[in-house]
Parts: sequence; structure tokens; C-alpha cells
Amino acid sequence: MSGIHERHTGAAATIRKRPGRPRDPIAEQRILDAAINEFLERGAARFTMDGVARRAGVGKSTLYLRWADRDALLVESVRARSRSIEAVDTGSLRGDLIQLTTNLLRFLLEPVGYATFRITVDAVANPAYENVAKELAQRHRHAARRVFERARERGDAIDEAAVDPVVECLYGAVTMQVLNRGLGRPFASDSDLATRCTSTVDLVMRLLEP
Amino acid sequence: MSGIHERHTGAAATIRKRPGRPRDPIAEQRILDAAINEFLERGAARFTMDGVARRAGVGKSTLYLRWADRDALLVESVRARSRSIEAVDTGSLRGDLIQLTTNLLRFLLEPVGYATFRITVDAVANPAYENVAKELAQRHRHAARRVFERARERGDAIDEAAVDPVVECLYGAVTMQVLNRGLGRPFASDSDLATRCTSTVDLVMRLLEP
Repeated sequence: MSGIHERHTGAAATIRKRPGRPRDPIAEQRILDAAINEFLERGAARFTMDGVARRAGVGKSTLYLRWADRDALLVESVRARSRSIEAVDTGSLRGDLIQLTTNLLRFLLEPVGYATFRITVDAVANPAYENVAKELAQRHRHAARRVFERARERGDAIDEAAVDPVVECLYGAVTMQVLNRGLGRPFASDSDLATRCTSTVDLVMRLLEP
Repeated sequence: MSGIHERHTGAAATIRKRPGRPRDPIAEQRILDAAINEFLERGAARFTMDGVARRAGVGKSTLYLRWADRDALLVESVRARSRSIEAVDTGSLRGDLIQLTTNLLRFLLEPVGYATFRITVDAVANPAYENVAKELAQRHRHAARRVFERARERGDAIDEAAVDPVVECLYGAVTMQVLNRGLGRPFASDSDLATRCTSTVDLVMRLLEP
């Protein structure tokens, strides 16, 4: 069972295996949540296994049974929480792009999403976070690529040269929204957030016309 | 002399004044540089006055003569080094936008620029950096506004509704470049960097057509 799970997470390299010791999924989730909160509160430099253990109410040894070190734990916490953004398939390019940017903006304005973002920014200067930052970037790139592939399959006419720059502008605009708002100034409602994304998508989609 | 300087920096609130003690501009510059490097190497959480004093080769008391605390020092370091980006006036809207984005991308890929960016990101969750982040954002907004004001004065036809989103896309695209490259993968040459910015500007400028 452990072997099957391993093949599916793709994160085997960061997990220290102890065969025969069954996992407790609830404790695991609590630890991953605690890791995100610890990171947000104390920053990368003061993020410790001790702090996470205290916060999650488990012994430090429990952590070391599963994660080799603090970076492995932090990276898996981020990885575990940033999956659903790219599950997008509305039937139209416009719909998919609106959904994708809305998911991303909503996520980045939540504490866990902001932690993800900060790890990506830290990775610019800190090699310990380089792999997870690359993995997240790849996941986003893959999601965007799928959206455009489906549009082509449906026969949409698209200026191919504009695709990458448009995706860069969309993700960039979302990032600017996060930086300008901060965690303290959320959107009044989820539909306000969606409206904001819709107007950005409608604007930059003009660049995709051949 | 100290009084004149004070009026020009606009940072008087963060500076603890000791009248009668003349400033040493060379030492001051060394301290501001040391603060940036200390921040880059140790991160916000482990950034201390001690560390900066050691790095700059001055006594800790020298620091406290000028700056009330670590955040005031860090904020002034960032402020002192992020001035020239917005000095842009090429005679055309396209030229100004290319220059503005090129300056910004070049700056953000330098250690001091990246430190600025990281402080802006930290400010999302850390109130100590909120003011400097706001000030930097305002400075960028002001620079972009001036660029468009001059374009209007020259009689350029501009879709006003597109101005803010276009600026957001441009700054966002630059930010994505920084996140995707990191400090370890600089552009092969300054002209490569400028070419990258030029193609982004040429693309999104289409959105400004009325």
C-alpha cells in the first residue's frame, strides 16, 4: 500500500519511508497545516521542525519519521495544498481562462496560497526551495497549456505567438492584485474577485486573435 | 546641512536625529549596502542590527544613532536604492514603456532589486513593511501615470479604460520573468533583456488602441 501511494505522490524523494508503520492521515493533515501556519507566522528563516511539532501537538520524532528535514516538510505541505487550481474545463477558452485566473487569485489570497507564493519568491535566492518552485511553475504552465490545447481541438483560431505572453500577462496581473491587496484587503465577495478576473481575461484575450 | 538633507529624503519619520553630529555619507552608503546584503542572505526574520553592524564594520551604536530599529534601517536601505527606475522620458509612449519595464526588470534581477521585491511580498503579511511597500507601489504607479500623461499631452489616442490593466499586465509580466528566472539565470546580455521587454510592450500596446 505504501508502495502504491509512493508511485502516485511523485514526492517519494522527499519522504523517508519506515515500512510497517501505518500512516495516520488525520495527523498528517494536521502536521501539513501546522507547517504552513508556522511558515507564515515565522518566515522561512525561523521555520523549524520543533515549531511545527509544537503547533501540531505531536512529538518531533513523529515528524522525522516522515520528513527528512524542515525543507522536505515545508515543500510537501505546499505541494499537498496546491492541487485543485488547475482542474479547469468549462468548454470554452474564455471560460477556462476566467476559471484558471479566478482559482489562482482566490488561492493566492488565502494563507496557504500566499505561503506558496512566498516560497516561490524565496526560491529565487534559496536553492532549498528551487525544486518545489519549479514544480509549481511547471504545474501552472501545464494547466495553461491544456487550456489552449482544448481550444485548438475545438477549432478556435488563436495567434500562437501570443499564447505564452498572454499567459504571462494573466498570471502576472493576478500576482499584482495579490501584492496590491495583501492578505488584509480581501475582495468584498467571491463574485467581485471573479469579476476582476473576467475583465482582465476579456481584455488580454484580444491579443489572441490571429 | 542635516536639515536640508532631511527635507529632501522625505524619510524623516524613520530617522532618529542627533543634532550636531555630522553625517559620514560614505559610511552611510556602506551601512545601507550592508543592510541589503544582510537581508538577502539571512531573510527578514534573521535580519538584525548586530548583523548589519558587523557586516558594515561599524559599531552597533552608530546604527542606532541614525535608525530607531531594524525595520527603519531596512526600509531606508530599500528606499535609497530604488530611485532611478522611474526617470523615464524618451519622447514616445512606446519608448517610455519599454524603458520603464526594462529598468524594472533589470533592477529586480539585481540583488538590491530582488530585496525590494521580497520586502513587498513580505509586506503582504508583515505590517512592519507595509509603509515602504505602499511607498514603492505609489512610486511605480506615479511613474506609469506620468508616462501616460505625457502621451496624452502629445495627442496620442488612448483607450483610457485599458491603461490601468495594461500597466498591471506589464508590471506583472516583468514579475513573472523574475520568478521564472531567479537570480541565478540572468539574461545573456542587457540587449536580450531589453528585447524581451520590447516584445511584451509591443504586444500589450495593442490593447491601448481606442
